[in-house]
Amino acid sequence: MIVSLLTIGNELLKGATINTNASWIGKNLFKVGAQLNKQITVKDNHSAIISALNYLFENKPDLVIITGGLGPTADDITRETLFEYFGANAILDEFYWKELSDYFEKKLKKPISENNRSQALVPDIGEIVPNPVGSARGFKFKKDNTTFFSLPGVPLEMKEMITSSIIPWINDHNPIVLKQIKIRTSGKPESAIATIIEPILNEYEHYEYGFFPSAYGVDIIVTGIDEGTLNEIDQKITFAIPELIFTKSDQNIENVIVKLLAKNNRTLSTAESCTGGLIGHRITQVSGSSSVYHGGIISYSNEVKEKQLKVKHDTLMSHGAVSEETAKEMASGVRLALSADIGLSITGIAGPTGGTPDKPVGLVYIGYSDKEITFGKKLLFGKNRSLNKIRSSQAALNLLYKELMKDI
Amino acid sequence: MIVSLLTIGNELLKGATINTNASWIGKNLFKVGAQLNKQITVKDNHSAIISALNYLFENKPDLVIITGGLGPTADDITRETLFEYFGANAILDEFYWKELSDYFEKKLKKPISENNRSQALVPDIGEIVPNPVGSARGFKFKKDNTTFFSLPGVPLEMKEMITSSIIPWINDHNPIVLKQIKIRTSGKPESAIATIIEPILNEYEHYEYGFFPSAYGVDIIVTGIDEGTLNEIDQKITFAIPELIFTKSDQNIENVIVKLLAKNNRTLSTAESCTGGLIGHRITQVSGSSSVYHGGIISYSNEVKEKQLKVKHDTLMSHGAVSEETAKEMASGVRLALSADIGLSITGIAGPTGGTPDKPVGLVYIGYSDKEITFGKKLLFGKNRSLNKIRSSQAALNLLYKELMKDI
Repeated sequence: MIVSLLTIGNELLKGATINTNASWIGKNLFKVGAQLNKQITVKDNHSAIISALNYLFENKPDLVIITGGLGPTADDITRETLFEYFGANAILDEFYWKELSDYFEKKLKKPISENNRSQALVPDIGEIVPNPVGSARGFKFKKDNTTFFSLPGVPLEMKEMITSSIIPWINDHNPIVLKQIKIRTSGKPESAIATIIEPILNEYEHYEYGFFPSAYGVDIIVTGIDEGTLNEIDQKITFAIPELIFTKSDQNIENVIVKLLAKNNRTLSTAESCTGGLIGHRITQVSGSSSVYHGGIISYSNEVKEKQLKVKHDTLMSHGAVSEETAKEMASGVRLALSADIGLSITGIAGPTGGTPDKPVGLVYIGYSDKEITFGKKLLFGKNRSLNKIRSSQAALNLLYKELMKDI
Repeated sequence: MIVSLLTIGNELLKGATINTNASWIGKNLFKVGAQLNKQITVKDNHSAIISALNYLFENKPDLVIITGGLGPTADDITRETLFEYFGANAILDEFYWKELSDYFEKKLKKPISENNRSQALVPDIGEIVPNPVGSARGFKFKKDNTTFFSLPGVPLEMKEMITSSIIPWINDHNPIVLKQIKIRTSGKPESAIATIIEPILNEYEHYEYGFFPSAYGVDIIVTGIDEGTLNEIDQKITFAIPELIFTKSDQNIENVIVKLLAKNNRTLSTAESCTGGLIGHRITQVSGSSSVYHGGIISYSNEVKEKQLKVKHDTLMSHGAVSEETAKEMASGVRLALSADIGLSITGIAGPTGGTPDKPVGLVYIGYSDKEITFGKKLLFGKNRSLNKIRSSQAALNLLYKELMKDI
């Protein structure tokens, strides 16, 4: 299946926005066995859009995905340009216009703007693609053997619509159904994982693989036709790096943890210094987390560590706020203060400044505490504040995951 | 000046790598007044590269930048494809080949591989573009009035070569230098802002503008030649929506807030229910936040609200956890518990489940408390958990920003 992507938006060409939509789409199509073969970005400009569509169409792709330019403002010209390109007339969808107007009046408590009227325009040929999370609906057109989907550029809306409309379309139209295995790991960099795993993967000629590294870990995805062979590969990988794998599904580690806590009937509390609330934020991204997560204390000052978490003044003076001892007392302190079964803590130097020769930027201690054991773990990351926060939170969640697995 | 970009690489289309090269180039060209008008990504594939070059050339650009595919491995085919496209013959640069061989022997302590020989091939027409930080040199070709630069895809090398070779070329060839203003807003959707601002912007014919919406707010960027006119536009926009603007720089609202807190010599604490630590996470993304942010309490259960934040049991029983009263008590409670000047709180129903007819998903209350005043504010967002958390945190930070501005 040949798939091309047209991303529309001045902001992408000005570098105001990084084109994460393109990589997200590339990755998620790859997962269902439909690789992108081309991607173009053009301005919100009539002739640029038309020429890009012509260029992509030349290649006779099965599918063209178009993102961006469906908003209500004057620079959003994708809709009218596509209608023209496909020879469609615009009709006002009175029902949707009423729905939108009602939403503005009742929910947003203000009259709808005339600018929004464009969002209720539908083509007399082609189809509407529902938008489950926003007001800009998408369009679907066909020209010869090519199907075109036009979606809004807002990442959240685009993602929902790819998932609910385009992936099912691909699954229906892809003659060769590729299967895939996905193994999510955390704890080692891509190069280390590749050194171990590539010799295994290279034994299988017709099975394509990719390593997808991020600050959260490395995903290994292998695609191919035969399920039995994929299972064999899966087993070999699992045997090679059992301690790094946290799931073989699409879930994040926080989802896996919330499920394990619920299954084990255990509750969690967090004490965060350098991550400043990121672990709490990640846990509470999971719907249903309120039944297992009591809450946390963000102890960004020593005073809060002492007063709220009962870290001993002596500990802070003799070992320092960034130490294994403090991490352990934070973990047991928050567990007791918030009446939870488990306390998870992080203290460290996120950077880019604040390091010393003894305690450099990137030094992080994680603490874990339950009724039976309390322990700490030392880690050393780099100099980037934001990355250090993500990696610390991931390491802490990974440690918690391993503890929870011991009870299974 | 018309500039187009061709990025070459399978990894970009699989989504294994985010195309940050494209946004970096877009941003840095924009800064010297040379906007990208098109960007294409294709695979390391001969015919895909040729067809992309033809497509870009059709537009008669002044400059085409090509990145990727100049490495020493078999899939790096950009060099030979370009030589063919421009009708150039490959000649071995004996001098550079010796330099490379010496580098391998003396610095890397290993014999050079025959694969590397390709990196010493130069075209008989066209020029070499020096690479100050790597072994893959670039090429410069001319066809009619279009100049083509081919650079390696390794970000560090590409950036050095853009800076040392391409920006100077643009400065020599660009007659017009564009300037820009950026205004960041929060609190109203793109459509509402456009209704107010577009009539102003449409008065200025040669000034390009764009609205860049995200879950955090809407950025307005205007570009044009004359600084005086841009200042005039800036003033008119500021006069029209003063309450929505939080900065005219590249900063996020959390950066602005940390600076304002430091300037006003005030300290902050947070009490988060539905956002689960997101506000703390955002504040602590700012380097230096530790001097103004004491920390926070993530009160995901009623027990934590009562015990840690001293929200009255009666309040929770009579008004509920999601109420203005609770938000106010959370804000004053965290301020006192953490000995800070200001307490900022959020309580709400993030969704997608947990709503009632009285208190639907998306209902959020923000609380603010300082020594003089404690108040709450009601908001209603949608059904998406992740988006509700971002929007709630943004609304709370926006409210805090406005309170801090009163002291300026």
